[in-house]
Amino acid sequence: MNQKIIDFRTEPGAYRHWKIEFDGPVAHLLMDVDASAGLFPGYELKLNSYDLGVDIELYDAVQRLRFEHPEVGAVVLRSAKENVFCAGANIRMLGKSSHGHKVNFCKFTNETRLSIEDASEHSGQVYLCAVRGTAAGGGYELAVTAEHIMLIDDRKSSVSLPELPLLAVLPGTGGLTRVTDKRKVRRDLADVFCTTEEGVRGKRAVQWRLVDEVIPPSAWNEKVASRAKEFSEKSDRPRDAKGIVLHRIERDITDTAVVYKHVRVELEKEKRQATITIAGPTEPVPASVEAAQALGDSFWPLAMARELDDAILHLRLNEPELGLLAFRTEGDGKAVLAYDDFLAAHGAHWLMREILHYLKRTLKRVDVTSRSIVTLIEPGSCFAGTLAELAFAADRAVMFSGNRAGDNRAPAAIILGAANFGAYPMGNGLTRLQTRFLGEPETLVKAETQIGATLDAEAANDLGLVTATFDDTDWNDEVRIMLEERASFSPDSLTGLEANLRFAGPETMETRIFGRLTAWQNWIFQRPNAVGEDGALKRYGSGQQPVYDRNRV
Amino acid sequence: MNQKIIDFRTEPGAYRHWKIEFDGPVAHLLMDVDASAGLFPGYELKLNSYDLGVDIELYDAVQRLRFEHPEVGAVVLRSAKENVFCAGANIRMLGKSSHGHKVNFCKFTNETRLSIEDASEHSGQVYLCAVRGTAAGGGYELAVTAEHIMLIDDRKSSVSLPELPLLAVLPGTGGLTRVTDKRKVRRDLADVFCTTEEGVRGKRAVQWRLVDEVIPPSAWNEKVASRAKEFSEKSDRPRDAKGIVLHRIERDITDTAVVYKHVRVELEKEKRQATITIAGPTEPVPASVEAAQALGDSFWPLAMARELDDAILHLRLNEPELGLLAFRTEGDGKAVLAYDDFLAAHGAHWLMREILHYLKRTLKRVDVTSRSIVTLIEPGSCFAGTLAELAFAADRAVMFSGNRAGDNRAPAAIILGAANFGAYPMGNGLTRLQTRFLGEPETLVKAETQIGATLDAEAANDLGLVTATFDDTDWNDEVRIMLEERASFSPDSLTGLEANLRFAGPETMETRIFGRLTAWQNWIFQRPNAVGEDGALKRYGSGQQPVYDRNRV
Repeated sequence: MNQKIIDFRTEPGAYRHWKIEFDGPVAHLLMDVDASAGLFPGYELKLNSYDLGVDIELYDAVQRLRFEHPEVGAVVLRSAKENVFCAGANIRMLGKSSHGHKVNFCKFTNETRLSIEDASEHSGQVYLCAVRGTAAGGGYELAVTAEHIMLIDDRKSSVSLPELPLLAVLPGTGGLTRVTDKRKVRRDLADVFCTTEEGVRGKRAVQWRLVDEVIPPSAWNEKVASRAKEFSEKSDRPRDAKGIVLHRIERDITDTAVVYKHVRVELEKEKRQATITIAGPTEPVPASVEAAQALGDSFWPLAMARELDDAILHLRLNEPELGLLAFRTEGDGKAVLAYDDFLAAHGAHWLMREILHYLKRTLKRVDVTSRSIVTLIEPGSCFAGTLAELAFAADRAVMFSGNRAGDNRAPAAIILGAANFGAYPMGNGLTRLQTRFLGEPETLVKAETQIGATLDAEAANDLGLVTATFDDTDWNDEVRIMLEERASFSPDSLTGLEANLRFAGPETMETRIFGRLTAWQNWIFQRPNAVGEDGALKRYGSGQQPVYDRNRV
Repeated sequence: MNQKIIDFRTEPGAYRHWKIEFDGPVAHLLMDVDASAGLFPGYELKLNSYDLGVDIELYDAVQRLRFEHPEVGAVVLRSAKENVFCAGANIRMLGKSSHGHKVNFCKFTNETRLSIEDASEHSGQVYLCAVRGTAAGGGYELAVTAEHIMLIDDRKSSVSLPELPLLAVLPGTGGLTRVTDKRKVRRDLADVFCTTEEGVRGKRAVQWRLVDEVIPPSAWNEKVASRAKEFSEKSDRPRDAKGIVLHRIERDITDTAVVYKHVRVELEKEKRQATITIAGPTEPVPASVEAAQALGDSFWPLAMARELDDAILHLRLNEPELGLLAFRTEGDGKAVLAYDDFLAAHGAHWLMREILHYLKRTLKRVDVTSRSIVTLIEPGSCFAGTLAELAFAADRAVMFSGNRAGDNRAPAAIILGAANFGAYPMGNGLTRLQTRFLGEPETLVKAETQIGATLDAEAANDLGLVTATFDDTDWNDEVRIMLEERASFSPDSLTGLEANLRFAGPETMETRIFGRLTAWQNWIFQRPNAVGEDGALKRYGSGQQPVYDRNRV
């Protein structure tokens, strides 16, 4: 079912499943899924159930609320349908999907939910959730992304995670982890909750910490409005600022390339490799933050981030056979650093803050992409500050030592910036350099003293910033052999290896969602008890009971 | 291949694969695998490769060193074979094993390795590893359990994790996690290490933090001896104390029961359930620590722990269809508390310390057992202190309120003891009660004020110690329905659910091994690229290259 290209670009005018209503500093994000508008044929999105297409719109809405609506301090997630909040991921869609599609769908859903929490935590745009009707499975998983959950006490509205009893899978897009880590539900009550089809309603939902308050129907509208207002008033977003417009990302897709303005992706199918080249800024930094805002979405850091974000999502869903991503850059490292400094200097400005957090999220998207990542640091590149993170996000970074014969561009260099020491924490809460140097904290200290220095291959290698260096004599052969070898390995084992090696150090709710919960769900997503012909995902709704292999493993 | 009963009971006289040599305060644990003595037919354990049988002996040796040899302060792990340290888990065995056997084999291996680290950390019996020859895959995973790794610098001895390139699986019994979390190897170097068949040797192994020192052949024997002596001298174990003997555990196995002295397991195959009943102490606590030691392995806490440990391992490997474990106790709660108090009072005595840590490890073994666990707290039971942990380790605990008609035993009670507030941390570093009350720390404080109080069903329920209470009218039906419902669910989804809900709160190297790494390995252990007819695990050694599906998921 993955024949057509899945396009992550959309805009409110094209939404089929969501509506946004504005009421001054409060926005209402209404789920109103068009059952007939599934991303693929073969299923109907009844009862506000969702597929990847619904989530693509949600992701777009969350992004636009941040960039286009500085005046919004609180967002209320709710359903536009009368008797249902959201029935979760569509089961027929899951039953028909390939393993790879299910996994990537869940990953994107997780990222989108984390972006909602990121808005609440970092952007002064706090999400509330008003649950009227059933919030089941993915519906409740969506609700728990909100900082405050209101449940109507109408004797029928409930929250539930019925995946296990109904479908023999987990509430695997963050649900289990948020129940334990965010809501801190007592483990035995969580066990009851996750094995009870009908879920929990009324006061018990508050007692069990599943929602924050229940509200009688008579007070519902008023209470939801007043809570939203209350949260919006705590926001530090500028009420009278004007947002910028996120225009449709322009790109040109051919068999061998995806070309954006600042990002170029070369597809080498026989090598199972995609090379992503990012062009550094060609314009000097704007004279003022107002001038930067006037550039809107053409301001380089934002434009580049949007293109990179789209490129990664495109590769994940549409090019599953390209198991290796090679990052390259072209341009002037000092110019990249100038943009970093500009963003840092104006970090208190709402738009610059949004851009910094978006860069952070985009780099995190790289971190959790299940492809081998190699960064190639060559003459003419600009691995400085923000772009140097691509070297530290990679499984390996190799650096060209000296010059290529006949190439008069500057030798390869890494320039560290302040941004490498705090602006872009990974999911584990540490910077990529902190994670890298967990075993040698003294190197981290030393690296920080080198901010602004142009580090050539030898210096970068001595500082532990790159995996290996090769000169002109060896570069082509060594890189070719490394990439060929990587491409020869089992993609599954690489996925497991990379998921483990990339996130050393502390765990957070976020790393747990991707590291522990995802892995268990992936395991279950292959088991015949779930996905076999007689398994629960396949038989759901057929009137036939699933047949289980009763052996524990 | 799992037809015969796997017996975890062994003793040095019966070892086929290990030798222990003693040199005063230093013991040498020599791996000398008998290739012809595999646990199952169909493979040869060449090159010190191992199967579950080899690990069962290792586990036994580690236990005996702690209990039988108080004089030993340092243990040197080494190979008795000339050119190989250990080639890791036997690949033909893995290729022929069922998914369930592979997973349970890896789990036990992980537990055994953690027990080695537990000895180093808590028991004053520090493990060193002396690597001469190849330490490949599971061989290196075993080496990194040691606190200090010595590698001979003979130009051929090396450490490696070749699982990924050779077998398309992960170094999944703790290897990856110890490389990042314990050895803190830089992530890109770890990536190179884990994808390089031939591994790393000599000084580079030290530079990459893979071993602690390399030693020239001329100094090898002397240096290994002096390092071991040095570590043993730091030990706080009593050099002139006498150990106790761990006698063979007596048990009687029938179709419907496994009966030990203090532990009785009833097997109800049609219900897919095993009921484990633990009898509290019948003798008063010994008059002195010397009297306790004189009891040897018949001292109740130790005897009970050994039987429970054996029962759980037996159920895991030999009764995979029994998906539900119900814990019961019988006896006098105050008597259990008296033993707890005795152990705590003499916690500085080497043997009492060992017993406390063994109880801790046994409870951890319950935590990571992939079976649903329900604790039934009934009249006549003794859920006090150490045994109350079985209520907090359970997915659910239900408690009988009041008396059964015609039963004049004491009503069900929970008695908290000091042991519930620190003696038995889970893998996450928190006690079970701390983990339980993450969302309501005030309840934890309140619970501690109730130490020693006899809490009836209502009081225990009010304190959040149990999931539900039922009186004589409802007990039989409610418990039956709960257990029947549990047994109706997909075992795989329950495994995933329980692995996620049981370990809220902080992550440690240990929770990561079981939670993240195991899940990824389990996933890979099902993928055709590893275990399919053309997969790497099946084709290894056949001369045929594996065939991979190149799609990333």
